Amino acid sequence: MTDKTEHSEKMQKLLDLIAELSDLSHISAVLGWDQYVNIPPGGVEERGTQSAALGRILHEKFTTDEVGQLIADLEEEVGDLTAETDEARAVKVIKKQYEKQTKVPLPLIMESIKATTVANNAWVEAKTKSDFSIFEPHLEKIVDLRKQYADLFKPFDHIYDPLLDDYEPGMKTADVKEIFDALRPQQVALLQEIAEKEPPDNGFIKQNFKEEYQKIIGRYVITRFGYDWNRGRLDVAPHPFTTEFGLGDVRITTRYLEDDGVSALFSTMHEAGHAMYGQGVAEKYKRHPLSGAASLAIHESQSRLWENIIGRSKEFWSFFYPSMQMLFPEYLTDISLTDFYRGINRVEPSYIRVEADEATYNLHIMLRLEIEIGLMEGTIEVADLPEIWNTRMEEYLGITPPDDAQGVLQDIHWSGGMIGYFPTYALGNLASVQLWDKMLEENPNVPDEIARGEFDTILGWMREHVHQYGSKYEPQEIMIKATGSKITPEPYVQYLRDKYGEIYSL
Amino acid sequence: MTDKTEHSEKMQKLLDLIAELSDLSHISAVLGWDQYVNIPPGGVEERGTQSAALGRILHEKFTTDEVGQLIADLEEEVGDLTAETDEARAVKVIKKQYEKQTKVPLPLIMESIKATTVANNAWVEAKTKSDFSIFEPHLEKIVDLRKQYADLFKPFDHIYDPLLDDYEPGMKTADVKEIFDALRPQQVALLQEIAEKEPPDNGFIKQNFKEEYQKIIGRYVITRFGYDWNRGRLDVAPHPFTTEFGLGDVRITTRYLEDDGVSALFSTMHEAGHAMYGQGVAEKYKRHPLSGAASLAIHESQSRLWENIIGRSKEFWSFFYPSMQMLFPEYLTDISLTDFYRGINRVEPSYIRVEADEATYNLHIMLRLEIEIGLMEGTIEVADLPEIWNTRMEEYLGITPPDDAQGVLQDIHWSGGMIGYFPTYALGNLASVQLWDKMLEENPNVPDEIARGEFDTILGWMREHVHQYGSKYEPQEIMIKATGSKITPEPYVQYLRDKYGEIYSL
Repeated sequence: MTDKTEHSEKMQKLLDLIAELSDLSHISAVLGWDQYVNIPPGGVEERGTQSAALGRILHEKFTTDEVGQLIADLEEEVGDLTAETDEARAVKVIKKQYEKQTKVPLPLIMESIKATTVANNAWVEAKTKSDFSIFEPHLEKIVDLRKQYADLFKPFDHIYDPLLDDYEPGMKTADVKEIFDALRPQQVALLQEIAEKEPPDNGFIKQNFKEEYQKIIGRYVITRFGYDWNRGRLDVAPHPFTTEFGLGDVRITTRYLEDDGVSALFSTMHEAGHAMYGQGVAEKYKRHPLSGAASLAIHESQSRLWENIIGRSKEFWSFFYPSMQMLFPEYLTDISLTDFYRGINRVEPSYIRVEADEATYNLHIMLRLEIEIGLMEGTIEVADLPEIWNTRMEEYLGITPPDDAQGVLQDIHWSGGMIGYFPTYALGNLASVQLWDKMLEENPNVPDEIARGEFDTILGWMREHVHQYGSKYEPQEIMIKATGSKITPEPYVQYLRDKYGEIYSL
Repeated sequence: MTDKTEHSEKMQKLLDLIAELSDLSHISAVLGWDQYVNIPPGGVEERGTQSAALGRILHEKFTTDEVGQLIADLEEEVGDLTAETDEARAVKVIKKQYEKQTKVPLPLIMESIKATTVANNAWVEAKTKSDFSIFEPHLEKIVDLRKQYADLFKPFDHIYDPLLDDYEPGMKTADVKEIFDALRPQQVALLQEIAEKEPPDNGFIKQNFKEEYQKIIGRYVITRFGYDWNRGRLDVAPHPFTTEFGLGDVRITTRYLEDDGVSALFSTMHEAGHAMYGQGVAEKYKRHPLSGAASLAIHESQSRLWENIIGRSKEFWSFFYPSMQMLFPEYLTDISLTDFYRGINRVEPSYIRVEADEATYNLHIMLRLEIEIGLMEGTIEVADLPEIWNTRMEEYLGITPPDDAQGVLQDIHWSGGMIGYFPTYALGNLASVQLWDKMLEENPNVPDEIARGEFDTILGWMREHVHQYGSKYEPQEIMIKATGSKITPEPYVQYLRDKYGEIYSL
C-alpha cells in the first residue's frame, strides 16, 4: 500500500483524487460488464442514462481548473516527468489524460456515451439478424462523433493520429503504416508458399463438442496458466472481453460455439492473457494513476502470447491433448497428437478475425485499418461498408463472407466508438513474439516446462518485465527495457516461418 | 414520460436533480446485486470502497443547502403537500428524505457503508461455518452505528421508531406492538388447535429434486403470473432478494435446496411478487421522486400474496400439479393432488423463517422484533444472541436450532444494517389478505381463473390499486384507498382459520 507520509501535500491530493476517480471508473466498468453479460432488453435505456450520469461526474471531477493547477504545480515540484520515479510518471500520465479530456467539450462526451450505448444494442440486433441497415445510422453517428473528437486535436499529421494515440500512446498512423508495409509482403509471400502445399485436415474439430466439457477444459487450462479465480470469474457474452473492477476483480468472458471444439478454448486463453496482465500489476498501484496497462498493443502481446505462442504450440498440446481426448473420445480417439496439432494450426483464410490463424490474422487487421482511415478521411462512406468489406476480403484472403454477420458486423468495436483500436491487435502480435524470444533466451527450459503443464516461469517473467509496471512506462519503453527493441515485424515473421515451415514442410 | 413544460422552473429543477440521483442510486443497486450474485472474494475490498464513493456522491449532491432551499420554496409554491397531485406528493416525499438525510453526518454514513460491506462478507463466512463469533464483532459495530443513527432523531417515543420509519413510513413501534399483541394470542390459539390434530404427511417433498427441473417450474410459474422477463432476470444468490435498476430492469434471485422440492419455487414466487410491484409502477414515475414503493409492508403484501395466498392455494395446484408430476414422477406419481396440497400446507414449527408455513411465520417475526428492540434499548447484548435466539425459539415454537446457521445467522438483514425491517414482513402478511379479500369481493371468479392458470385479473387489480402509485401514498393511505381499512390483524386470522380449518378439520 502507498504510504501517505511519503508524499508532498499536493502529490497526496492528486493521489486521493485519482483514487476516487479510479473507483468511479471501475463502477462504470461494472455497469458495462453487466450490460454485456446480463442486462434484459428493457433495462438498456435506463442503463444508458446511468452510464452517462456517471461519465458526466467523472468528467466534471477531473477537468476542473483546480486539477489543472494541481498538475501544473506538481510538474514544477517533480521536475523531469520522464524520471524513473512513480511520482514523476504518475504526473506524466495524469497530465496527458487531463490535456486530452479538457479539450473535449462535455456535450460531445455525453452524446458519445449515449450514442454508443444505443449503437451497441443496434449492433447486437443487426448481427443477430445479419442486417447492416439496422446498424448503419448508428455507425454514421459514431464516425461523425469520432471526427469531431479528432478535430479537437488539430494540428495533427493525420486525422487518425488522435484516435490511435488513445489506445497506443505515442504511436503515429505513419509508424503503423510503415510497420504494416514491411509486414504485408512477407505475410503474403508466406501465405502463397503455404497455399501451394496440401493443408492438414481439421475436420475433426468442426463437430458438435459438448459445451459443458468445453467449459471444463477452458477453466482447467487457464487455472494452470495462473489465472487467479480468487480475483476474477469467467462468464458468457456474445463477444469475449476482459474487464477490470480493480486489482482484485479482473473478469473475462467467452462464448461457446456448437460446431467448433477449440474456438472457445482459444478465446478463453486469449482473455486470460489479458486478465493475468491486469492481475499482475503491482499492489502499490491499486487506485493509483499508474494502475492501468502500458497500451493495448502491450495488452494484446499478453493475450496472443497465451492464446497462440503457448496455446497453439506442440508442447502445450503434448500436455493437454490427453485431457481433450478424455472429454471428447467420440471425435479425438483416432486423431494423433501430431495430426491434432497440425489441424488446429491449419492456415485457412476465414471470415471471422477472432478465429483467424496466425498466418492470416494480421490481414484482417490491415483491412480494418484501411477502412477506419478511409472513414476518418472521408474517402469511405458508412453505407458502402458491406460492399467494401466483402471486396477487400476477396482481394486479401480470397473469400467473400456469406452475410454481414460474418463480415462487417462481426466485431463489437465500432459500436462502442472504438475506432483506432484494431491496429493494436497486429502490433500486439509482433510484440508477443519479441517478448517470447527474450524470455526464451533467458529460460531455455520453458518448452519442457510447458510440456509438463508448468507455466510459472513464463508468468513470472511477464510479471517482472511487463505486468508489474502498470502504465508507468510507455509501450515502446516497455519493449526496449524488456527486449532491447521497439515493436518490429522481423521476429514475428521469423516465428511464422519457423512454425509453418515445419508444419507445411516449406 | 413526464412533459417538461408542465412544471414550474423550480419543480423542474427538483425533478432533474432527483432523476440524476435516481440514476446514481440504481447504479448503487447494480454494485450490490453484483456483489451478492457474482463477486469473487478478491474483489470485495475494492467494491466496498467503490460503493462508499458512490454513496458519498449521492449524499453530497442531495444534502446541500441549495436543495433545502429549493424544497422550502416548492413547499410554499405547492401549498398542501397532502394534495392529490403528483407534484405535491413528490415534494412531500423528497422533503421527508431530505430532513432525514441532513440529520445524518457524512462520516456516520461512510462508516455504515464500509461496516455493512465488510459485515456482509463476515456473515456469509459465519453462516457457511455456522460460527456466530465470526459475525459477532461486525454486528456489534452495526448495532452501535444504528444507535448513533436513531439518536439523531431525538426526541422520539421509542429509540426503535426512527429505524422502523425508514422501512414503514408513519408507523410507530407502539402501533406494531399493538397489532402484534392482538395477533399473537390468536395465532397461538390456532397453533394449539392444530397441534392436537394429526399432521398431513409431507415427506414426499423432502427428497432430492433435480435443480434443473426446479428451475423449469419456477420460471414457468412466474411467467404465468406475469413477471416480465423483458425487464428482469432470475439468478442464484445465497439469500433470495429483489433489486431494481430502474423500471426496465427488476431482477430477482433464488437458491435451490437439494433436499426440498418446493422451497425454491416458493421463494421464486415470493420475489416475483416483489418484482411485479416494481415493474408495475406507472411509466410516468421513471426517474421520478415517486418511483419507489409505498413501504416494505406494502411490498411484502405483494410477495406474500403470490407466494402464499395464491401459491399455496388448492386452485393454484390444481393447475400446476400435473406439471410438477411430469417433472418429478419418481416422487409424485403416487401422491394425490389433495395429499400434495395438504402436505405443502403442513403446519410445523421450523428453524428457517423463509421456509415457515403461514401459521407459524409471524412468530418468527415477533422473535426478531423483540431482539431488535432489546438491542436498541441496550437490554440485550450481541454476544448473548445465539442463546437468546435458541431459548425463545424453544418458547415460541417448541424447537431449538441445531446450529447458528439455522438460528441467529439465517438472515442477511442485520449484516446490511437493516434493523427495523423484520416487522414489515408480518405487517405485509396482514395487508396481503386485506387486499386479497377486497380483490376477491370485486372479482369472485378469480379462484376459477387461478385453476385455469390465469392471473391477469389479480395482477391487473394490484397494478390498479397498489403498483401504479409508486410511493405517491403512504402505506396506510394505500390500504384505506384500496380496502377501506388500515392494516389490521382480523382478516389474516380469519384467512388462517378458514384455510387450516379445512385442512385440519378444526
